[in-house]
Amino acid sequence: MAWTADEIAKHKDGSSCWIVIENKVYDVTEFLLKHPGGPGIILKYAGRDATSVYVPIHSPDAIQKNLLPSQCLGSWDGTSKQANETQTKKTQDELRVEREMKRRPPLNRVLNLRDIEDVAKKVLPHSVLAFYSAGTDDELSLQENARAFDRFFFLARVMRPVSKCNPSTTILGFNSSLPVFVSGAAQAILGHPQGELNITRACGKANIIQMVCTYASIPRAQIASATLPSQPLFFQLYKVTDTAATAKVVQEAEQLGYKAIFLTVDAVVVGNRERDVRSLWVLQQQEGQDQYYVEGDPEATTNLFGTSAVNRRNVFDPDLSWKETIPWLRSITKLPIVLKGIQCVEDAALAVEAGVEGILISNHGGRQLESALPPLEVLYKIRQQRPDIFDKVEVYIDGGIRRGTDVIKAVCLGAKAVGLGRPFLYALSAYGQEGVTKMLDILRREITISMQLLGAASIRDLTPELVERVDWEPMRRRDSKL
Amino acid sequence: MAWTADEIAKHKDGSSCWIVIENKVYDVTEFLLKHPGGPGIILKYAGRDATSVYVPIHSPDAIQKNLLPSQCLGSWDGTSKQANETQTKKTQDELRVEREMKRRPPLNRVLNLRDIEDVAKKVLPHSVLAFYSAGTDDELSLQENARAFDRFFFLARVMRPVSKCNPSTTILGFNSSLPVFVSGAAQAILGHPQGELNITRACGKANIIQMVCTYASIPRAQIASATLPSQPLFFQLYKVTDTAATAKVVQEAEQLGYKAIFLTVDAVVVGNRERDVRSLWVLQQQEGQDQYYVEGDPEATTNLFGTSAVNRRNVFDPDLSWKETIPWLRSITKLPIVLKGIQCVEDAALAVEAGVEGILISNHGGRQLESALPPLEVLYKIRQQRPDIFDKVEVYIDGGIRRGTDVIKAVCLGAKAVGLGRPFLYALSAYGQEGVTKMLDILRREITISMQLLGAASIRDLTPELVERVDWEPMRRRDSKL
Amino acid sequence: MAWTADEIAKHKDGSSCWIVIENKVYDVTEFLLKHPGGPGIILKYAGRDATSVYVPIHSPDAIQKNLLPSQCLGSWDGTSKQANETQTKKTQDELRVEREMKRRPPLNRVLNLRDIEDVAKKVLPHSVLAFYSAGTDDELSLQENARAFDRFFFLARVMRPVSKCNPSTTILGFNSSLPVFVSGAAQAILGHPQGELNITRACGKANIIQMVCTYASIPRAQIASATLPSQPLFFQLYKVTDTAATAKVVQEAEQLGYKAIFLTVDAVVVGNRERDVRSLWVLQQQEGQDQYYVEGDPEATTNLFGTSAVNRRNVFDPDLSWKETIPWLRSITKLPIVLKGIQCVEDAALAVEAGVEGILISNHGGRQLESALPPLEVLYKIRQQRPDIFDKVEVYIDGGIRRGTDVIKAVCLGAKAVGLGRPFLYALSAYGQEGVTKMLDILRREITISMQLLGAASIRDLTPELVERVDWEPMRRRDSKL
Amino acid sequence: MAWTADEIAKHKDGSSCWIVIENKVYDVTEFLLKHPGGPGIILKYAGRDATSVYVPIHSPDAIQKNLLPSQCLGSWDGTSKQANETQTKKTQDELRVEREMKRRPPLNRVLNLRDIEDVAKKVLPHSVLAFYSAGTDDELSLQENARAFDRFFFLARVMRPVSKCNPSTTILGFNSSLPVFVSGAAQAILGHPQGELNITRACGKANIIQMVCTYASIPRAQIASATLPSQPLFFQLYKVTDTAATAKVVQEAEQLGYKAIFLTVDAVVVGNRERDVRSLWVLQQQEGQDQYYVEGDPEATTNLFGTSAVNRRNVFDPDLSWKETIPWLRSITKLPIVLKGIQCVEDAALAVEAGVEGILISNHGGRQLESALPPLEVLYKIRQQRPDIFDKVEVYIDGGIRRGTDVIKAVCLGAKAVGLGRPFLYALSAYGQEGVTKMLDILRREITISMQLLGAASIRDLTPELVERVDWEPMRRRDSKL
Repeated sequence: MAWTADEIAKHKDGSSCWIVIENKVYDVTEFLLKHPGGPGIILKYAGRDATSVYVPIHSPDAIQKNLLPSQCLGSWDGTSKQANETQTKKTQDELRVEREMKRRPPLNRVLNLRDIEDVAKKVLPHSVLAFYSAGTDDELSLQENARAFDRFFFLARVMRPVSKCNPSTTILGFNSSLPVFVSGAAQAILGHPQGELNITRACGKANIIQMVCTYASIPRAQIASATLPSQPLFFQLYKVTDTAATAKVVQEAEQLGYKAIFLTVDAVVVGNRERDVRSLWVLQQQEGQDQYYVEGDPEATTNLFGTSAVNRRNVFDPDLSWKETIPWLRSITKLPIVLKGIQCVEDAALAVEAGVEGILISNHGGRQLESALPPLEVLYKIRQQRPDIFDKVEVYIDGGIRRGTDVIKAVCLGAKAVGLGRPFLYALSAYGQEGVTKMLDILRREITISMQLLGAASIRDLTPELVERVDWEPMRRRDSKL
Repeated sequence: MAWTADEIAKHKDGSSCWIVIENKVYDVTEFLLKHPGGPGIILKYAGRDATSVYVPIHSPDAIQKNLLPSQCLGSWDGTSKQANETQTKKTQDELRVEREMKRRPPLNRVLNLRDIEDVAKKVLPHSVLAFYSAGTDDELSLQENARAFDRFFFLARVMRPVSKCNPSTTILGFNSSLPVFVSGAAQAILGHPQGELNITRACGKANIIQMVCTYASIPRAQIASATLPSQPLFFQLYKVTDTAATAKVVQEAEQLGYKAIFLTVDAVVVGNRERDVRSLWVLQQQEGQDQYYVEGDPEATTNLFGTSAVNRRNVFDPDLSWKETIPWLRSITKLPIVLKGIQCVEDAALAVEAGVEGILISNHGGRQLESALPPLEVLYKIRQQRPDIFDKVEVYIDGGIRRGTDVIKAVCLGAKAVGLGRPFLYALSAYGQEGVTKMLDILRREITISMQLLGAASIRDLTPELVERVDWEPMRRRDSKL
Repeated sequence: MAWTADEIAKHKDGSSCWIVIENKVYDVTEFLLKHPGGPGIILKYAGRDATSVYVPIHSPDAIQKNLLPSQCLGSWDGTSKQANETQTKKTQDELRVEREMKRRPPLNRVLNLRDIEDVAKKVLPHSVLAFYSAGTDDELSLQENARAFDRFFFLARVMRPVSKCNPSTTILGFNSSLPVFVSGAAQAILGHPQGELNITRACGKANIIQMVCTYASIPRAQIASATLPSQPLFFQLYKVTDTAATAKVVQEAEQLGYKAIFLTVDAVVVGNRERDVRSLWVLQQQEGQDQYYVEGDPEATTNLFGTSAVNRRNVFDPDLSWKETIPWLRSITKLPIVLKGIQCVEDAALAVEAGVEGILISNHGGRQLESALPPLEVLYKIRQQRPDIFDKVEVYIDGGIRRGTDVIKAVCLGAKAVGLGRPFLYALSAYGQEGVTKMLDILRREITISMQLLGAASIRDLTPELVERVDWEPMRRRDSKL
Repeated sequence: MAWTADEIAKHKDGSSCWIVIENKVYDVTEFLLKHPGGPGIILKYAGRDATSVYVPIHSPDAIQKNLLPSQCLGSWDGTSKQANETQTKKTQDELRVEREMKRRPPLNRVLNLRDIEDVAKKVLPHSVLAFYSAGTDDELSLQENARAFDRFFFLARVMRPVSKCNPSTTILGFNSSLPVFVSGAAQAILGHPQGELNITRACGKANIIQMVCTYASIPRAQIASATLPSQPLFFQLYKVTDTAATAKVVQEAEQLGYKAIFLTVDAVVVGNRERDVRSLWVLQQQEGQDQYYVEGDPEATTNLFGTSAVNRRNVFDPDLSWKETIPWLRSITKLPIVLKGIQCVEDAALAVEAGVEGILISNHGGRQLESALPPLEVLYKIRQQRPDIFDKVEVYIDGGIRRGTDVIKAVCLGAKAVGLGRPFLYALSAYGQEGVTKMLDILRREITISMQLLGAASIRDLTPELVERVDWEPMRRRDSKL
């Protein structure tokens, strides 16, 4: 069947959303909430031809993997200019991005990870920034993740030789030049056309380990083939309800040479990220296309984010369990297993009992459960209540880390390494591979200097006695330039 | 006697306040402070014809119920145009409301309860908003009620099956689809012409229980008749000094099928709500009718809010007692009794001894005693000091709840359910019945997702171990949009 | 000797300051820092004729009491117009005061003590406001005095009969209609021509006790003669180095019928009140008379506030002692003695041992020692550590009290009564005697309502169990209107 | 070899930096990070003739001491006007300094150290202010150093004779008129052409001891010759890798009559002071010379602050040790030894064991390790955990002290004296020697008055019982004028 642009244009929002790709018309209403990049990006092209933005950032088989045959509704008759004419005029947001790309500071004027983030926030399309930066609900956990580091102060030691200061360590037995790894930074292609590949390449040179997401925007085989000979990769697994499908993914990763499985346990459903949802409306407002309420509006009750919709559309397996999930995973892979998303001491202890090789204390960067305790606080609780756990599994944390001192604080408290997610996406979006390299250089410099000033010549010297949790509220304004 | 508009217009403030309704002249000076909608609304029409605004929102017998025969002073001669001419020109405030009503966002762009509140604050008349939103004195308790929730963080559990997550519970034995009920949201008609009825209808569809106030703006019989067959209603009782009158009210409610009596115990006198009192002056200022002090001004000493006035005009029974009030109430009704307004552990224990079925920990939404401890903190103290109380009565809280996570935190600490008041009024005022439905949809979605991310499949799974009161100050800015 | 206006005009600042009063020329350089109204007021008229502002607010013998004969330098030749011509043109500040006096809100729109303070801050001359409002150094204690009250929350009791709520009490055996008294509000004449007299009259009608300062701007005999028959007055004593002079003052007060001596113990030297010192410069800046540094400026080293100057000019006795001062005071008066300015538990205990009748916990309204602990916190420490003290002496506090709930919190913790200082000056300055009456009406209403809501029918019912010091930071913005 | 201005101008940034001084061309790329004034100052003149700014503030042998012969590249041909033409036009920053110098308030209007700092911040060149004021990373320690004082309140004592209040004390046996000394304020010449000499002279008159830095901008012999007959000086030592060179420096200091060695132990590498690094770019931006990123930019990877650069260029000895450093220092000097930069109780105890005469608790004014605990908190911890240490060595602190009350708090907790650094530089920069004198006058007045109000007549009376660390967050805004 061939559709006219007028007909297609009627299906332009969450209640019915069609898009055109390479002259084919797809109904993506059901898919909106499954889209790893968030629904905002798709809705931007609802009722229109999305070919020019879709093709460069998706693999050729993405449609057949994600949509049912019945969701292809036919073809676009192509005669009307309406379906793609909106492409010809640039939006305010696109114009801003172009302008800001030319105004990026030179890389030697970028002093810290916040600087890079500032650049990225200027040059990223609004909807991508919203997807990258969003936290749940009021973003309380997102914010507190970072603020937690400010409460931990150093009790620095002096008169200790530090000329040979060496910040390298191992993670699951693999060498790492810093106690730092790339944690769950998916959909990198939204920020840079080379996507995760640039992170892989920069990490290879810097001897840093990258965790690649099930939903990476570049095929995991392609990422694997971009590594240096001895460069390890880890694999971040999302288990879906279709267990066999997940098993296939795991085995493929193992065959591709990935060295560990980080099983995501904090995402049985998707968190409520309002910044992401709102991004489309912000863009419409910029374009003077605001919408107003009409009484009796049918969208009042049947809308994009009704509860039933959420449950029906959820793609992740909500029924993970200690009893079944770990044994099953062991049965299909020989790789070490790390649980990503541990949020309390009790589950850390259960993970030890379950025999996994590591736990990543994380609340998914404040993107899942609102009011989840900051990872650094959970780490501190383990240190206080169950220090034996550090001897039994490797413990990592992620969330809110922006400075070398943040890394050191976590390591002092017992973390074997810390993960960073958004900073890699920001560095990539702002400056491509050079940005990622720069970011790692900065971390290396900050970690080295701070270790020396702390009196520590090696990671082993970073002990709990060097940090203290204070009982007042430091007042750093994290977002301001000096 | 027939009064001219000129004569009537002289009685235009708190020292002597007359209004005209359907050509009758009433002296409402005494009644000002008894008006459940606050004195501001009446004073707006002081010395004028208030028929057009009065009639649509009051029951036909409201005057004879509330005023003495002697307070009807006669009739208006009707000849002068002055008494009602001010009606012909719209105020700045009325124009604003009209303008903002057209600019409400579509309901599918309303993501949370704060969004709805934002809309309501734009479309409500200033004096109604002041009445709804006001807290006591400097509104410290009002603000701290909400901030208290930010201090409680989750220790989420993972690897627990949650696909069958069910947030339903019972309240006093009645089914409720969520651990949520409508708490003390009176005078709904000020925000929407259908008043409490729209809340009743939306709650019926959503299987949520509504507590109807003694001073509801819709007759309680009419509300009862708007329920679905098995839809329960609770009755919020204000005991007045005339005990027989109160008994009559209770028995009428029981006969109408109300299922429980929530006896208000935190309102023996009316709190000092300055925002409400000021609202009239704000409107006058907008109209360029500001007033200035004249030395020797008689209002200096004899004014609206002198102490003696307060005591003389108080309508509530200030002499409730454990010894007499509960036994008396038991003697006139078979309905379960809940005390609304418990504010400390000791009184919670006394309530158990008094044999009531439930207690609602509340400081009246920060509208009564300033510096009253936030309900969540009182709940937490009961959990720490007297956890046995949760086994003996049902415990509820209200005050400051705006998110699904707020609900869950209270339930984890022992609340059987939580009440929301203002949010229902805001939803009603902003979008009518659709707004209330939307608000309940949002809560259901937020509660469900958060329970799943917390590892809880049922209300039973929400235990005290899942929350922790932290010792730092989270810095959520509650009033800002992301 | 007769001086020309030109010669007089050269002595116009802190290094040499002359003024003309009724054609006599005085050198007041030495007196500047002894002036109870602060140096700013005098410096405003330095080198000029100050007659018109001096005469209305000083007693006829003020000059001979305060200046040495040698400090009268002769007479003004009176021929030049320069000495007083500046009087003919009003300053920006004077114009502002005139304008704002006409814009004061009617008294029945003044809802609380902050409202009155807001009016006063608009209508007071800048230098007087600076003198009244100033605290020491960075005004940390000034601010924390008030903030301390926000940390104490109520655990309200319900179901207690409160219709007969009565907030009256006794202070040193004298009846007081509220647990409130006037504390150390001197120099009232700067804010209103009737000065302390208006406070006396309003307190007489309201049955509130006034503490009259040694440095009251109205002769203490005149104040005594303005009382109602049974109206008690207290006397705030500053002991000066000349003990005999102080003895004379005490005995005069006793003869005039003052009922108690409040000996000031927290002011052995004058605190560093920068706001007060700066006020003159602000006025000069408003008049476009700014001054700039010139290198080698002799004022660099010999200036108004050098240390030696401070010590030389200090008028108060810096050598008070437990051993000598109290016995001496006992020996010259039969009046009860209260120590004003106790700041720690240890000194409260020493005061008990010294046998005084009462202690006023105070840091002089944040005007003396910076970083002094807030009085409410000191009171709380006595309650925690030495509750027996409350049985042995009457304990009062002052500093930062602005609401009825503030009063109640202090009384719950053990205060027999609380003093307010600045609020009386603000009420007087804004609205004269009517303002003071209004202010007491407000306090009475706030105290009564809050006691009722707290479940307290009398001052006896206000017990420590009703308040709790919380461990978080409430965020009231005290200076904002709702 | 003779270079043209064009050739020289190509070497204008951190990758290759040449400057011309007295017609000689130097390659200072390597030296940039060794420059005690920070690299920003040099980079400002990169590729240009710096003679006019260099000569007045450096000693004649500075170049041969700091640069290798090979780093002199030859001479400038002098024909082109380009190398120095930029000198002829004043920058925005220079114009601002000139303007603000004329608008400085007279010294008798400077009331406190913050006032002086405000003036200094207006009249200092941007790059010098950046160097003086910078802290590490996000300046959290810098800020918290000062905020810590706000948490300590006084429990003032009354009725204690204080007329003979005397704030003098001894430091290492030398008389000091206040418990205050000059701590580590180097590079004073950047703020005033007389540099450290003016501090020396003002301290001599005020009987205050100055600690002179290894990197003072005036030769230490010249400083020594500016002292009054009995005026002691202390010497702040930086040990460099070349131990013999350091020994020579120490022995020279001893021969010049310096009285103690303060060995810097918190600066084994230079902290990450971003404000300092950024200052050049701010100036360029002011001049409309902003730079933007070009993809493939070689500076992306090889830039000024790469890690390797940091390590290679570090000048300080990173291998201090308890075992070797103190014995070595003892072996070459008879002077008392104080360790400057102790940051925890454990190292304070080790210092006692090592037999030094004193310890200076310091985090280098927040310029070295970010998140270092504020010195006042470290002092407090020693008081709580190891009060015996105060009997065994003299303990000092520096960092964040701005008020007399700050000094007193530290002394109460056990400090023998406190050091101030930046305030001396600000006073000098704003008003020269007169400014330093003024600043000491202010401190003397503040300390004396506060001691008297605290009931202390001598330093001995300042005991731990007089201060209390509170558990709430005082909210002083330190940077606002009253």
